[in-house]
Amino acid sequence: MNQTFTVQGMTCGHCERSVTIAIKQLDPGAEVHIDRPQNRVDVNSEQPREKIAAAIREEGYAVAA
Amino acid sequence: MNQTFTVQGMTCGHCERSVTIAIKQLDPGAEVHIDRPQNRVDVNSEQPREKIAAAIREEGYAVAA
Repeated sequence: MNQTFTVQGMTCGHCERSVTIAIKQLDPGAEVHIDRPQNRVDVNSEQPREKIAAAIREEGYAVAA
Repeated sequence: MNQTFTVQGMTCGHCERSVTIAIKQLDPGAEVHIDRPQNRVDVNSEQPREKIAAAIREEGYAVAA
């Protein structure tokens, strides 16, 4: 299912990569698309929303509730 | 010898890491200290200044002449 997250603090391409890898570690089959200027992370995954948000937070980025 | 570079575009800790690794690939014995808010990269290395600057530029960051 498609899930959208608002993520603060992704300042560069390395940050996008860290977030993408964190989500794919949780769900290797997840599709991840990041629109950095919009602070938007789109994820296609069956993992629960809170687990995905936790994975992003563990990388040091703030996820809107 | 101590060399100081002004480097633009380092927005996060991942960027600092990329710059540090690039310099250490050129000179594994180099000491590197980065003050990101000041765009300042201090390097203790015997490598020529232009080679160090080129290594930083290859990572995608602008180095002042």
